[in-house]
Amino acid sequence: MAPQQPIRILVTTPIPPDILAEAVALSPRVLILKEEDLKEKPSLTGEIEIVYGGLVPEQWSLARNLKWNQVPGAGMNGLLTPEVVAHPAVITNAHMHARAISEHLFGMLLMLTRGLHIAYRQQLTRKWDSSSFTHGGLATLPGKTLGILGLGAVGSCAAQMGAALGMRVVGLDRDRAEVPDVETVYGPQRKDEMLAQGDYIMVTLPLTSETRRFVSRREFEVMKPGALLFNVGRGGTIDTDAMVAALESGRLGGAGLDVVDPQPLPPDHPLWTMPNVIISPYCAGKYPDYDAACGRIFLENLRRYLAGEPLLNVVDKKAGY
Amino acid sequence: MAPQQPIRILVTTPIPPDILAEAVALSPRVLILKEEDLKEKPSLTGEIEIVYGGLVPEQWSLARNLKWNQVPGAGMNGLLTPEVVAHPAVITNAHMHARAISEHLFGMLLMLTRGLHIAYRQQLTRKWDSSSFTHGGLATLPGKTLGILGLGAVGSCAAQMGAALGMRVVGLDRDRAEVPDVETVYGPQRKDEMLAQGDYIMVTLPLTSETRRFVSRREFEVMKPGALLFNVGRGGTIDTDAMVAALESGRLGGAGLDVVDPQPLPPDHPLWTMPNVIISPYCAGKYPDYDAACGRIFLENLRRYLAGEPLLNVVDKKAGY
Repeated sequence: MAPQQPIRILVTTPIPPDILAEAVALSPRVLILKEEDLKEKPSLTGEIEIVYGGLVPEQWSLARNLKWNQVPGAGMNGLLTPEVVAHPAVITNAHMHARAISEHLFGMLLMLTRGLHIAYRQQLTRKWDSSSFTHGGLATLPGKTLGILGLGAVGSCAAQMGAALGMRVVGLDRDRAEVPDVETVYGPQRKDEMLAQGDYIMVTLPLTSETRRFVSRREFEVMKPGALLFNVGRGGTIDTDAMVAALESGRLGGAGLDVVDPQPLPPDHPLWTMPNVIISPYCAGKYPDYDAACGRIFLENLRRYLAGEPLLNVVDKKAGY
Repeated sequence: MAPQQPIRILVTTPIPPDILAEAVALSPRVLILKEEDLKEKPSLTGEIEIVYGGLVPEQWSLARNLKWNQVPGAGMNGLLTPEVVAHPAVITNAHMHARAISEHLFGMLLMLTRGLHIAYRQQLTRKWDSSSFTHGGLATLPGKTLGILGLGAVGSCAAQMGAALGMRVVGLDRDRAEVPDVETVYGPQRKDEMLAQGDYIMVTLPLTSETRRFVSRREFEVMKPGALLFNVGRGGTIDTDAMVAALESGRLGGAGLDVVDPQPLPPDHPLWTMPNVIISPYCAGKYPDYDAACGRIFLENLRRYLAGEPLLNVVDKKAGY
């Protein structure tokens, strides 16, 4: 047999030992490198074929043999520099936190519709007072309309959960025309039509040049009065000042935000203290088995890579997601 | 035609004018009385045939002609005095808040599983810190087991929602052997077997002599370590001291309580400040259209009463619910 070249895999992200062992067992050619190995011998960067995790910008120019980078998350903004876009390496991402993020969305939604944020504020001052719970937001979900901007892994999962909870679901997506549980998928040019229907609007968009400030002053004007808005994509897809104005005027009934712009939110920002706003610090995708779930995606893609099969979750580097 | 006696209906609970008008239009015999009418002429109490709302204890002994009392809620404890139980009048209740209460349950559940109570505590101090969100509670719901104590209107609705969210549902009920979406319905004598399975336990029990302190020290010992407990029935079904001890030891992972014992919770009670406890002040059943939804139940029952048909939601006065 002809001697076979090793496949050098740089791992820069946490991976459970059993999954790493499975990766090594997939082929005798697999050779795992850690960041320490590169520090000792920087020239190794030019021999890396696969990265599980990420490279810093100066490494990309040196990684001439890089074929594939499995990123341990979903969002690409910041990573896709012109150099990375021009590099022939394939980038794949990981969507396994779609369910966690969707549950986070519905947790924020139910907090607002059930007034649990009011209850918790009262709890922290040891106050038992049910008279605060008479506002119109206490509506139940069946029959309400959920509008989802972006029907990728997270948006599709949120659509499934929304339908399961008895809601009518409409959505907006650039690429998809039909998504399970979504009654109508609107294209970006029909944004207003879609926004006008939602009692609750969930934003799961990636941040690209097309989606920056996708929800801005004009969009708040076409939304249903009193609608609730949620964002778990990237803060920059919403015009923060316009959102604050819509909340202040009551045009927007409330918001649940896991991402904001600017992020982290500065201590003196008005969003912190608005009565119907819930802010979580970019933690919607967290769950205890994240490293294992992400490692499993890498493992499956490595198996495909070695077998010459198409990889899962290939990122369109030009589109940005 | 023989002259017909008026049917005197005392209304003591808010009812939208259009629904009251529909009630009056059901029969020319219907005669609506308000509490003011009784104050002017107390002897009228003996002529009341129907009450929508409630009578105070001293009125029950005078209401010799009362045939039916439609109560505008679900819980009976406090109302069913020996005199009321002995009175021949039928009591019906209203369960139309089952969906609101179920959504409240899942709002509290998702707050705890997504760490939104932690996020909200941080928000109130304007703190952006995602490092707090690594605890084991962040698990997603599919594949988890939901155990529901009491499968009446609320418990059945919660079962449907739990199944729709991907959970396996088991339950406990005294009267029902099969409930949609519930894999196994255990009888009260198999309480331990049922409790041992639940990642999340929801209590929707009425308070009766049989259910008082139904969840007590021994029950916390058989639960899964780290289980989350929710109560939207009556506070007295859980032994509060045993629950506080289980929370302190970490045996119980957290709790979401819309009812407590004692209620209202005194300002110095340890439950207020426990880190994984969410307390709402008996507001789970509130929603904006409550009066209308309840009025519709009364209207349908009045139609049935006038037509001689069986009433909906007849309370078993001896069983207590």
